[in-house]
Amino acid sequence: MPLGDNRWGKSEVRVSKVLPEDGFVDITVQVLLEGDVGPAHTDGDNMNVLPTDTMRNTIYGLAQEHLTHDVERFAEVLCGRFLTNDYVETASVSIEGATWQRETETGYVGGSSQRRVARLVRGGRESTAAGVKGLVVLKTRGSAFEGFPRDEFTILPEATDRLLATSVTADWSYASLPADTTETWDLVRKTLVDRFMEDWSASVQHQGYLMGEAVLAAVDEITEISFRLPNQHHLPYDLARFGMDWDGTVFHPVSEPYGDIYLTVTR
Amino acid sequence: MPLGDNRWGKSEVRVSKVLPEDGFVDITVQVLLEGDVGPAHTDGDNMNVLPTDTMRNTIYGLAQEHLTHDVERFAEVLCGRFLTNDYVETASVSIEGATWQRETETGYVGGSSQRRVARLVRGGRESTAAGVKGLVVLKTRGSAFEGFPRDEFTILPEATDRLLATSVTADWSYASLPADTTETWDLVRKTLVDRFMEDWSASVQHQGYLMGEAVLAAVDEITEISFRLPNQHHLPYDLARFGMDWDGTVFHPVSEPYGDIYLTVTR
Amino acid sequence: MPLGDNRWGKSEVRVSKVLPEDGFVDITVQVLLEGDVGPAHTDGDNMNVLPTDTMRNTIYGLAQEHLTHDVERFAEVLCGRFLTNDYVETASVSIEGATWQRETETGYVGGSSQRRVARLVRGGRESTAAGVKGLVVLKTRGSAFEGFPRDEFTILPEATDRLLATSVTADWSYASLPADTTETWDLVRKTLVDRFMEDWSASVQHQGYLMGEAVLAAVDEITEISFRLPNQHHLPYDLARFGMDWDGTVFHPVSEPYGDIYLTVTR
Amino acid sequence: MPLGDNRWGKSEVRVSKVLPEDGFVDITVQVLLEGDVGPAHTDGDNMNVLPTDTMRNTIYGLAQEHLTHDVERFAEVLCGRFLTNDYVETASVSIEGATWQRETETGYVGGSSQRRVARLVRGGRESTAAGVKGLVVLKTRGSAFEGFPRDEFTILPEATDRLLATSVTADWSYASLPADTTETWDLVRKTLVDRFMEDWSASVQHQGYLMGEAVLAAVDEITEISFRLPNQHHLPYDLARFGMDWDGTVFHPVSEPYGDIYLTVTR
Repeated sequence: MPLGDNRWGKSEVRVSKVLPEDGFVDITVQVLLEGDVGPAHTDGDNMNVLPTDTMRNTIYGLAQEHLTHDVERFAEVLCGRFLTNDYVETASVSIEGATWQRETETGYVGGSSQRRVARLVRGGRESTAAGVKGLVVLKTRGSAFEGFPRDEFTILPEATDRLLATSVTADWSYASLPADTTETWDLVRKTLVDRFMEDWSASVQHQGYLMGEAVLAAVDEITEISFRLPNQHHLPYDLARFGMDWDGTVFHPVSEPYGDIYLTVTR
Repeated sequence: MPLGDNRWGKSEVRVSKVLPEDGFVDITVQVLLEGDVGPAHTDGDNMNVLPTDTMRNTIYGLAQEHLTHDVERFAEVLCGRFLTNDYVETASVSIEGATWQRETETGYVGGSSQRRVARLVRGGRESTAAGVKGLVVLKTRGSAFEGFPRDEFTILPEATDRLLATSVTADWSYASLPADTTETWDLVRKTLVDRFMEDWSASVQHQGYLMGEAVLAAVDEITEISFRLPNQHHLPYDLARFGMDWDGTVFHPVSEPYGDIYLTVTR
Repeated sequence: MPLGDNRWGKSEVRVSKVLPEDGFVDITVQVLLEGDVGPAHTDGDNMNVLPTDTMRNTIYGLAQEHLTHDVERFAEVLCGRFLTNDYVETASVSIEGATWQRETETGYVGGSSQRRVARLVRGGRESTAAGVKGLVVLKTRGSAFEGFPRDEFTILPEATDRLLATSVTADWSYASLPADTTETWDLVRKTLVDRFMEDWSASVQHQGYLMGEAVLAAVDEITEISFRLPNQHHLPYDLARFGMDWDGTVFHPVSEPYGDIYLTVTR
Repeated sequence: MPLGDNRWGKSEVRVSKVLPEDGFVDITVQVLLEGDVGPAHTDGDNMNVLPTDTMRNTIYGLAQEHLTHDVERFAEVLCGRFLTNDYVETASVSIEGATWQRETETGYVGGSSQRRVARLVRGGRESTAAGVKGLVVLKTRGSAFEGFPRDEFTILPEATDRLLATSVTADWSYASLPADTTETWDLVRKTLVDRFMEDWSASVQHQGYLMGEAVLAAVDEITEISFRLPNQHHLPYDLARFGMDWDGTVFHPVSEPYGDIYLTVTR
């Protein structure tokens, strides 16, 4: 039977590097290749199956010369290397960088869920994207949700001013890489946080659109930005059951289920 | 700026149900809707934004009449319900069912990572798929990896007979739903396990292809099947460093990094 | 300032082994040592600090000769080895074994949350214990919770017949190791499951006591057994809010918060 | 058979609160009670079994009046409340507070693994403790590990200047609660970070001792402090296998196994 889409690679390759002049980089890399490997699937012929162990070693080997805070350029170097094999048609490299807050010349505090993301595809098709994951933001006022349709399963009250929290996942496409990818990433991250904190929003959807619009306005090289914005609900706790009046301060944060909002803003 | 693709819904809705004649069902549901909600994003107009809380309630409300082991049909009922709203163009429902081993009439043992998956899309576009996640399989012999290309970063030895382990994620598309979706799911699952255990394979890719081919041969309604097969490496531990000979029995299972293999088999 | 209690070791050492006659073992080991290492803390003198890397290597090195399904005896071998260093006073070894269901001579299905546990302490103080973790059980009938005290924060209805689910963690102490530790472990596990399924219980506490009593009755070498039994609540979903009658079948399983019950049964 | 130690309670109760003058609190609470509940275990008599659901409700009910950043005092209020039941002998309350960085009057960034911990026990026995969890710190220089004993399983090279990373868990006991528990907690946290960053250490043990000594010197009310310090290894990657020289910059961070160091410093 015919083989359809396929790719192979290495995931969760963890690399850290001390940059003598410039701090500390801590990344997790995924490489996925596509190419002339049909016979590997159908006949067990591994002639063109670059071992995933080799991919891992290549990442470490090239990190010594090429890994800096500019993770997009390291991804570019990796893609280029894998494409030197003529049986590789497309190379995809995704990098997630951990956040370390520098405290002293050699000391850092970590533990943040925030990740800087770079995703490059080169070869048979090409794309250049960056992103952020695990950017957790919350505001105690400045968001609403009202005027929505109701049916017999609707019991949600209208909210004119509610607490809003989410863990932002955003991915944006670059028409071309900006000169300083770290500076640009920092600007996008700051724009996302500022707009979340400062813009009044009528819904998670509205909040996301305003954030996306602002990012596109701030960075010329970005052609579109996509969001996943899970609504990390903090629910009023029903104290009336105990003969108490809820005074608007105590909430019940719930891990599941959660509202799940996806949107893209383009030019 | 223009709004691009978007959808909204509820994730991680956990529902369990005692079926008086037929055991116990324990599922987690995700609903995602697409429709006429542009103004919600750009202008904060929620007129067509069915609350995700309402989606949650709808799932429980309809579960009482409609939820059985045939999770595809429950997904169908949910999609149909959400499409009764004329502003909803497409409804996607994904269901993951936990595995409970029945021990007595009312008693069950759980704790398996295995999930039965159903994914239906209805409305503006349509698809019907089922799958399995977290199906962890291992064989101590019957797999190899040799004849692969080598470069200066290749140190992996050829393996003529190696231990192979993976956590199978498979998704298959149905041309039409089989009469008994549970019986079919059980047959696919059994086919995957049997082929993994019994077929000699030259690589993870080869193993996956053989499994996919067998599933397509076994079930007429399936048009294609896609796999993600992470290679859960068990590495020989280098005892030579301590002056010992490795006798082929002791391994070091590593969680990261892992070989990551994706493939699709079609008709 | 004085140094108080201290210990050092290696955690999460993963080892697997193919037993040519007898299947497959897959364990995670923790070693913790206590001894004459005060100066290491106060003065940075590492003279007696056996490296944790050496502990790791020792586990693999001794696994080749000594690791079998009888994990208590492997723990005994490891403790003995570490105590050959005269500066080590006490060695603690904990082992958690994964559950693999044998399907063919060389093939296994895994993915269970269930772990077989062994915990040995040797040297300055001694104890021998075994246990189970992640044994998830559920019964749809045969448990109650009524007759409890009420105050102004109590809204829980009395339940004369409720669904009960938990993930059993149990640890039992051996006066002496039984001849066949695997056979004994299997008997304890079966006793726990059977009593959970078959005994009517008035509460989680009552259920746990009945299970503990039965284990002590079944195995002479066990002197006491301790449980942690989180109540994995499946709550009736309040359909009355939608004008529906709850027919007793649909539940909302909640991950948090959970009732948390600890108890020990002794002789 | 005799019942041994036992307790019951509620875990993972999540509560958040907007403090109109003073920001945002986000905690997870565990309550465990001990008391006259033997017959509940042996005879199914729930007369004295305060429902864990009532404990949950009590936490929310009392949070409205009593929850502030001073989580130790909220724990005190909760203990006091549960001890008003004459069948409760001992009440233990543990609180873990999430870290939210205030950005604007109403806006916060979260996502840190760091937790502020309070643990109070009142009634039959009493203790008052605070702590920190998930404080991830790393320094690229300023730590060593040399002069350790060697045996045939020792291959670790001596390190005169190594990268050191850990996720600090520390718990300290208070002779009496300081006047401002938040200010004291901040001081302890700052002391831990400063000493980690600034003190040269000969081992994780040495590093922990220096940190503990400094905390005891800084806060009179603290009688002792205990640490768990997992060594989050960043290993030199062996580039010599590819004919390269390792220049001391590229590391392989490994999640497992890890060195596991426990110590207590007292007065």
